[in-house]
Amino acid sequence: MVSRVVYGRGSFNQLNEILSPKRKNAKAPFIFLVDDVFKGNAWLTSRIPLSYDDKLIYISANEEPKTSQVDELVEQIILNYKETPSGIIGIGGGTLLDLAKAVALMLTNKGEAKDYQGWDLIKNPGIYHVGIPTISGTGSEVSRTTILTGPVRKLGINSDYTPFDQVILDPELTKDVPKNQWFYTGMDCFVHCIESLNGTYLNTFSQSYGEKALELCKEIFLEDTLTEKEAADKLMMASWHGGMSIAYSQVGVAHAMSYGLGYLLGVKHGVGNCIVFEHLEEYYPEGVAMYKAMRDKHNISIPQGVCADLSDKEFDIMIDVALSLEPLWENAIGKNWKKTITREKLKALYLKM
Amino acid sequence: MVSRVVYGRGSFNQLNEILSPKRKNAKAPFIFLVDDVFKGNAWLTSRIPLSYDDKLIYISANEEPKTSQVDELVEQIILNYKETPSGIIGIGGGTLLDLAKAVALMLTNKGEAKDYQGWDLIKNPGIYHVGIPTISGTGSEVSRTTILTGPVRKLGINSDYTPFDQVILDPELTKDVPKNQWFYTGMDCFVHCIESLNGTYLNTFSQSYGEKALELCKEIFLEDTLTEKEAADKLMMASWHGGMSIAYSQVGVAHAMSYGLGYLLGVKHGVGNCIVFEHLEEYYPEGVAMYKAMRDKHNISIPQGVCADLSDKEFDIMIDVALSLEPLWENAIGKNWKKTITREKLKALYLKM
Repeated sequence: MVSRVVYGRGSFNQLNEILSPKRKNAKAPFIFLVDDVFKGNAWLTSRIPLSYDDKLIYISANEEPKTSQVDELVEQIILNYKETPSGIIGIGGGTLLDLAKAVALMLTNKGEAKDYQGWDLIKNPGIYHVGIPTISGTGSEVSRTTILTGPVRKLGINSDYTPFDQVILDPELTKDVPKNQWFYTGMDCFVHCIESLNGTYLNTFSQSYGEKALELCKEIFLEDTLTEKEAADKLMMASWHGGMSIAYSQVGVAHAMSYGLGYLLGVKHGVGNCIVFEHLEEYYPEGVAMYKAMRDKHNISIPQGVCADLSDKEFDIMIDVALSLEPLWENAIGKNWKKTITREKLKALYLKM
Repeated sequence: MVSRVVYGRGSFNQLNEILSPKRKNAKAPFIFLVDDVFKGNAWLTSRIPLSYDDKLIYISANEEPKTSQVDELVEQIILNYKETPSGIIGIGGGTLLDLAKAVALMLTNKGEAKDYQGWDLIKNPGIYHVGIPTISGTGSEVSRTTILTGPVRKLGINSDYTPFDQVILDPELTKDVPKNQWFYTGMDCFVHCIESLNGTYLNTFSQSYGEKALELCKEIFLEDTLTEKEAADKLMMASWHGGMSIAYSQVGVAHAMSYGLGYLLGVKHGVGNCIVFEHLEEYYPEGVAMYKAMRDKHNISIPQGVCADLSDKEFDIMIDVALSLEPLWENAIGKNWKKTITREKLKALYLKM
């Protein structure tokens, strides 16, 4: 689990105070990986404390994070600094947070990031890493995974060393998120809850987190009782609890199929979940009905026909990626999932999207 | 926060697997502090993995833990072993968990435990420490404090180094808790929620945890929908979430006054909370009504007249202890709490108990 967390509007201002005791020496820099939407945004960037050889690297979150991108960042850091950094700080959404976690791990584990996609393959603790979400829903701030697109699969580096050492939850940082993005990423949290609460891996620990996150999602996306600030505060907590819920159980059908879309078409995870979830009544009837009510209430349009022009070979690639995520299917359907989750079934589903 | 947690019935069986990688060498023992109600209970004790110089120390939880007790345990460990232990494992209720946390801290921080009662006085990380609750409600398994009775006050050692490095949540371990004890300790959790949710320190982080814990308490103590096992599973999670809620806000009137009772009369914390909470309608009207419904539903008798024969000097001692807990009062009443929380007011309340 995350060792330390601060919460509150304005808590981002504590960044310097939090990092200072963690600086190993003047030559061991802090590396800040920051979503490039904040380039030129002095409101945020002026509060990033840069000293000595500290480095701020802007990264676009337009594409899902890749293992090759992690390897390049690690190489760049190793080539530019004689010492291992004092820490990696990710500031952004799931893409930036996952990159920060992966870079911190790959600075202390040999080889390439793709070698560690899977469960508990990481052998050494990563360097100190801090996560600061600027959009709510992914649960990356609290999870023990970092989802990366590699040469053969889209899969996380799941390990006890993956979670952040420190998280700063400042809901004020989410104030400029565009509405569609807000909804898609919020739905990532909603889908986490539905998949966790309806999964065969569920236990009372995950259930209690999932139920709370789901309750918050309903309040945020279906009711009219909250101010904008209250809704932002609560969505940050929903993301946290939803992330905790899946960390101790597993996601399901929507995530497995969304990873297929992401791998082949580069569809971003949040909107990918929505595209898939539209068609999962068979697996999550109540969840899908609730999702559709949320979508309609907020007037969100979901891309249609993304699989319309795909070749058989392309379908096969997506289906391979989705089927490779065995724990997700086992959680969703049970031990005998292979009886009903056939290639034909998945193709029929993808064809609807 | 707690770095690692496992949850589930039977997870206690993983103890050896969890501890083995943490053994520093054959001469650095694991010290198990175990509630002496488990003496002769092979069902539990046979699963405590003792190797090399590991030591199992039985401790009575009949009295609240003391700073002097911590100092004696630390001295005993230092005198008996040439090396610092590999870890301290607390197995029991709040008393045993708090002792384990305090011993782990005092093995690496000079002086006496009483010197560290307060907030953020601990300078060095403690040694590896593991908490395994065998009764649910205290929140000690997740908190950043260890409440000790010292020579001048009852107050916690609150620090970022206090939380356990590892927690094992196995609800099966709570199966033999006597009914009164189950209720009193469960009410500790309930009172945490009421005090946190009605406090001026409340934020959305604490609120989300407190609301979930309160919802679980209502389900467990007021409804008839759960099996005994389900109720035990859920109470362990209620304790966890309730503990998280106060870790990021603060307790209030009941805890401040209960510490007074505990300090002077040695009243155990759980029942002390109940004795006090009976008379706090003025501060927590809804909470007290709900508490009374729970008490009546389970036919629990609460000690009466515990302050009947006290001298003025004794009242003064209790009042001094209660008033010294300024953050609790500020959380409960607000910055101007001194205007209404007078010595006379507290004496009048204590006289009812």
